[in-house]
Amino acid sequence: VIVTLLTDYGHDDDFAGICHAVIASVAPEVRVIDLTHGIPRFDVRRGALALRDALPYLPVGVHVAVVDPQVGTERRAVALSTAEGRMFVGPDNGLLSLAADRAGGVEVAVDITRSPHRLEPVSATFHGRDLFAPVAARLAAGSEMADAGTPLDPGELQTIELPRPSMDADTLVTHVLYTDGFGNATLDAGHEDLAGSGLTLGRPVDVQVGGRRLAATYTSSFADVEPGDAILYEDAQRALALAINRGNAAAAFGLAPDTEVRLRPR
Amino acid sequence: VIVTLLTDYGHDDDFAGICHAVIASVAPEVRVIDLTHGIPRFDVRRGALALRDALPYLPVGVHVAVVDPQVGTERRAVALSTAEGRMFVGPDNGLLSLAADRAGGVEVAVDITRSPHRLEPVSATFHGRDLFAPVAARLAAGSEMADAGTPLDPGELQTIELPRPSMDADTLVTHVLYTDGFGNATLDAGHEDLAGSGLTLGRPVDVQVGGRRLAATYTSSFADVEPGDAILYEDAQRALALAINRGNAAAAFGLAPDTEVRLRPR
Amino acid sequence: VIVTLLTDYGHDDDFAGICHAVIASVAPEVRVIDLTHGIPRFDVRRGALALRDALPYLPVGVHVAVVDPQVGTERRAVALSTAEGRMFVGPDNGLLSLAADRAGGVEVAVDITRSPHRLEPVSATFHGRDLFAPVAARLAAGSEMADAGTPLDPGELQTIELPRPSMDADTLVTHVLYTDGFGNATLDAGHEDLAGSGLTLGRPVDVQVGGRRLAATYTSSFADVEPGDAILYEDAQRALALAINRGNAAAAFGLAPDTEVRLRPR
Repeated sequence: VIVTLLTDYGHDDDFAGICHAVIASVAPEVRVIDLTHGIPRFDVRRGALALRDALPYLPVGVHVAVVDPQVGTERRAVALSTAEGRMFVGPDNGLLSLAADRAGGVEVAVDITRSPHRLEPVSATFHGRDLFAPVAARLAAGSEMADAGTPLDPGELQTIELPRPSMDADTLVTHVLYTDGFGNATLDAGHEDLAGSGLTLGRPVDVQVGGRRLAATYTSSFADVEPGDAILYEDAQRALALAINRGNAAAAFGLAPDTEVRLRPR
Repeated sequence: VIVTLLTDYGHDDDFAGICHAVIASVAPEVRVIDLTHGIPRFDVRRGALALRDALPYLPVGVHVAVVDPQVGTERRAVALSTAEGRMFVGPDNGLLSLAADRAGGVEVAVDITRSPHRLEPVSATFHGRDLFAPVAARLAAGSEMADAGTPLDPGELQTIELPRPSMDADTLVTHVLYTDGFGNATLDAGHEDLAGSGLTLGRPVDVQVGGRRLAATYTSSFADVEPGDAILYEDAQRALALAINRGNAAAAFGLAPDTEVRLRPR
Repeated sequence: VIVTLLTDYGHDDDFAGICHAVIASVAPEVRVIDLTHGIPRFDVRRGALALRDALPYLPVGVHVAVVDPQVGTERRAVALSTAEGRMFVGPDNGLLSLAADRAGGVEVAVDITRSPHRLEPVSATFHGRDLFAPVAARLAAGSEMADAGTPLDPGELQTIELPRPSMDADTLVTHVLYTDGFGNATLDAGHEDLAGSGLTLGRPVDVQVGGRRLAATYTSSFADVEPGDAILYEDAQRALALAINRGNAAAAFGLAPDTEVRLRPR
């Protein structure tokens, strides 16, 4: 069984490396895959979306996620197992919720805040090392969920609310979910939301962000437009996204999470 | 058999992590080594040089490279095997060509654009996940090249032309191949190009970049000069390089790929 | 046996990846864990402290560290084994000294500068690849320390002097050891140095940095104060540290290694 890691630890410090070392100490036979340590610091929703969208590509295993602005408070730490046989370990702040839903929903939840697997003394700031990594290592090595902590009603778990697209007359009103390292902005709409919008592959799109109007093309590939031109496209997670060919749409258009982006045929 | 990865994906997003996950899903027994994900975005030549120069240190295996500005267009995707028994997987844009040459030359080439190993639906933007990772995993697990796609004449593969040094009277005219994270600039000349140039280890060198003249020392080590002084040296890939001891030569001298650097004894 | 890597190579180049490849070539069965490649360039003390503080979480193995401003000079390269059965490989510039002390002290030291395990020709600039990685791989694979180089008196090894806290009347005078990627500043004092200082958990602290005075709270968790407020706390390495909740204390207060930070009850 493998363990995957997704955190906001970055690569300047040794936080991620220490988590690897702890897992190797507790369960030497377990393989660890770094999904990413580049989630923007404290951006729980971005982490939750990244974990959800990565899920179809991850071997069944123990998926650790740590984006944890409330570390050191009374926020709960949890381990979850789902209908698909996947396990999730992390803070109970919604970070795990979207992925757990996609994995069939939580069947068993355990409060691991005072897990017998934790490394004492537990620090106030580094639960990745002291709590999440050792619990995940034990679960990956075959330890029972029930031995990781105390039972918890799955209905009590924190969730995350995502914005949703809507139609306003002839306009599809969408919102930015997140922007990636290239400045491409993923929207809260997918192909299925386009029914009735009049937006058609290969046709120009009128994009309105704040008071600004931009021309884009709804296309399947960056290569269909000139460098510097804007496109609306289905991204690799099958969500609608806004980008500039060889440019940075987030910087150019001032796109950030929750920015409203209004789309209609041009 | 191992798989190595070299990409321009960076570390802010989970692109590299997802490729690991795909390989682990397809071929759990295959080990993956990240050569680098820090190739400057879309810099095919830099990627090709990095892969070529790393090659002598890589175990024989499947070497995946993804620097792919034309992803989503009709550019071909390929798998190659060489006289040395190495395999390469990536876009057919020259990225693999320098390393394949160094590995003895391409013996078998396969067009994998519509490989049966690909993950459907193939996205327009993330062929690392949908095409290159699964094909590489299958090859590393022992699948035949012939099963990865359709045969291709190696002579049709894209190549990369590198600049070459020349003598202009008493001056060795070189060009910057690339600069690294420390600002050191690797030139297109090696020790063997110095014959007849009059440049001698331990002696001062007159360096001309654009209209500017600089004094450097041709030396074997940074430690031979004071902090802030410029050196010409044989770098770890056995190429001539220009650097400033504890400084950033690229920034100080305005060095970029293809910048002409003229060298003569002082 | 595992190998851990701690370097200042960063992630833009393939230096770390090449070290992985060399180890995999020399000793395919050895597992490698990246502790960090984000040590600030040439910051030997920061690297030495990071390795020391990580040690309790690392499986017993071969710990490679490369922060090596004098690479290419006559500085010695060494392999050390300690009372706890750990091995360390790196330059003899103090980088290994704090961790070796914490691991029970050096029992056997070997000068590996001309190790038979090195990869010829050894470059002047990349000893990670040509010397440290292959020596570590051989040691991890079971090769004897004595075969890695020539014997060396442990008393001749370079060490690192750290600043120490002191009392000045009612003030605890501390110094910054380092700042992390979040701007949190680790001081050279621990809980045990607070005896007699009058500083009490949960109480306000008067912090003096240069001519500036700041109000902080001595607390166990960021969550005990408002965003933007300063705290003095015991960090994950059990050292006193200064931080701003959801802010950057290093930037706000001008904290750098060796900055004097004066603490007294408010």
